[in-house]
Amino acid sequence: MRLRHKPWASEKISENPQYVVAQPEEKKGKWDKEFGNDNPIHIEVGTGKGQFVTEMARANPDVNYIGIELYESVIVTALDRLIEAELPNVKLLNVDARNLTDFFASGEVGRVYLNFSDPWPKNRHEKRRLTYENFLKLYEDILIKGGEIHFKTDNQGLFEYSLKSFSWYGLHLKFLSLDLHNSDFEGNIMTEYEEKFSAKGQRIYRVEAQYQNQ
Amino acid sequence: MRLRHKPWASEKISENPQYVVAQPEEKKGKWDKEFGNDNPIHIEVGTGKGQFVTEMARANPDVNYIGIELYESVIVTALDRLIEAELPNVKLLNVDARNLTDFFASGEVGRVYLNFSDPWPKNRHEKRRLTYENFLKLYEDILIKGGEIHFKTDNQGLFEYSLKSFSWYGLHLKFLSLDLHNSDFEGNIMTEYEEKFSAKGQRIYRVEAQYQNQ
Ligand SMILES: C[S@@+](CC[C@H](N)C(=O)[O-])C[C@H]1O[C@@H](n2cnc3c(N)ncnc32)[C@H](O)[C@@H]1O
Ligand SMILES: C[S@@+](CC[C@H](N)C(=O)[O-])C[C@H]1O[C@@H](n2cnc3c(N)ncnc32)[C@H](O)[C@@H]1O
Repeated sequence: MRLRHKPWASEKISENPQYVVAQPEEKKGKWDKEFGNDNPIHIEVGTGKGQFVTEMARANPDVNYIGIELYESVIVTALDRLIEAELPNVKLLNVDARNLTDFFASGEVGRVYLNFSDPWPKNRHEKRRLTYENFLKLYEDILIKGGEIHFKTDNQGLFEYSLKSFSWYGLHLKFLSLDLHNSDFEGNIMTEYEEKFSAKGQRIYRVEAQYQNQ
Repeated sequence: MRLRHKPWASEKISENPQYVVAQPEEKKGKWDKEFGNDNPIHIEVGTGKGQFVTEMARANPDVNYIGIELYESVIVTALDRLIEAELPNVKLLNVDARNLTDFFASGEVGRVYLNFSDPWPKNRHEKRRLTYENFLKLYEDILIKGGEIHFKTDNQGLFEYSLKSFSWYGLHLKFLSLDLHNSDFEGNIMTEYEEKFSAKGQRIYRVEAQYQNQ
């Protein structure tokens, strides 16, 4: 993700705490109150410009979505989208996913989405990949029992790595497509990266992996 | 595999018991004697015309190979190859893989190769796929502890299915390529089907999956 310096981003974010939650540590274990209902909470880690969470929230009013994005200069575009969409069931967190357990209690999250995560192709950067075992442990810590990770990418190397990582962690694959856009999967909601890479003719890979801790 | 009626095949097979083993039940637990050494035994299930086992045997003289093929009219071509190659470390079995435990004792097999197995795309034929859980159980019964399945195919649907089946069985993926011929995997030995399908521009998928029964 190319980063542009946007000095006004910080201000805009703090002016919209109903969308970019201001003190997310204080919501830990209380997200149902923040949303005003008991609906399941699905998070997207590495939301980018927010198209996926916004359109998922529109399509699924009985699910609450939280998009997590590290960079102010990127999340501010997602914020624009939420202001425009005026949906009650989607929020953003401007935090590092490495600290997920500071923001969510055990079992508070119903599902984790990973879309077009940064590939970190060098072996020495393995620990940064969002499907590295430490991240799989973090997701397990906040997910319901038998929770699922839904992962899409165009990056062959990251997908190969992630399937191996899932198998070593003991996750079961419930859905797997090695060519999503030519499969019979219905209701796919595209991310920004997905639109960009599929337009270039890249295959999109998708998997649903379930924790076996029921 | 298109089958041609070859009335002479049966005779040719029985004339060459040093290559197509005649009473394989009697070798169960005694394959080391049959080969005259203690080298590991790697089997290929669904050998077809035998190019893979023959070339693997040539490249790896310290491994004994056994190709398993159901049809006489197909295995007879593999036999021709072995007669030509004159290798001491490769044999064929003209049997149904469903009966593997009749021919191999527990722990007698060091590795299972599956190459371009019949895809059986219809759901109701799932049980016939060589990566269906009943087959994974059969392989486990004859493999060493921590044994591995090495699987190649061009068939996207079968590969997706197989990765799911491996994950549900608890196998760990040690190697995974979603485009073998454009990967850095070295020393690949092509099968007949692999030559045919890769010439048509099909991607070749490959995985190594390990049993966790150490
Ligand atoms: C390649 S972009 C994909 C964006 C979007 N999901 C899509 O598919 O269009 C990956 C995003 O993940 C964010 N990201 C990477 N690591 C993160 C982390 N540890 N915590 C939060 N966000 C992260 C990056 O800042 C970037 O915006
Ligand atoms: C599609 S061909 C592939 C042949 C070869 N492995 C290759 O890659 O060129 C599959 C072969 O598996 C054999 N086969 C299928 N099911 C089998 C079984 N249960 N036992 C033994 N052989 C089987 C078929 O007869 C066929 O020759």
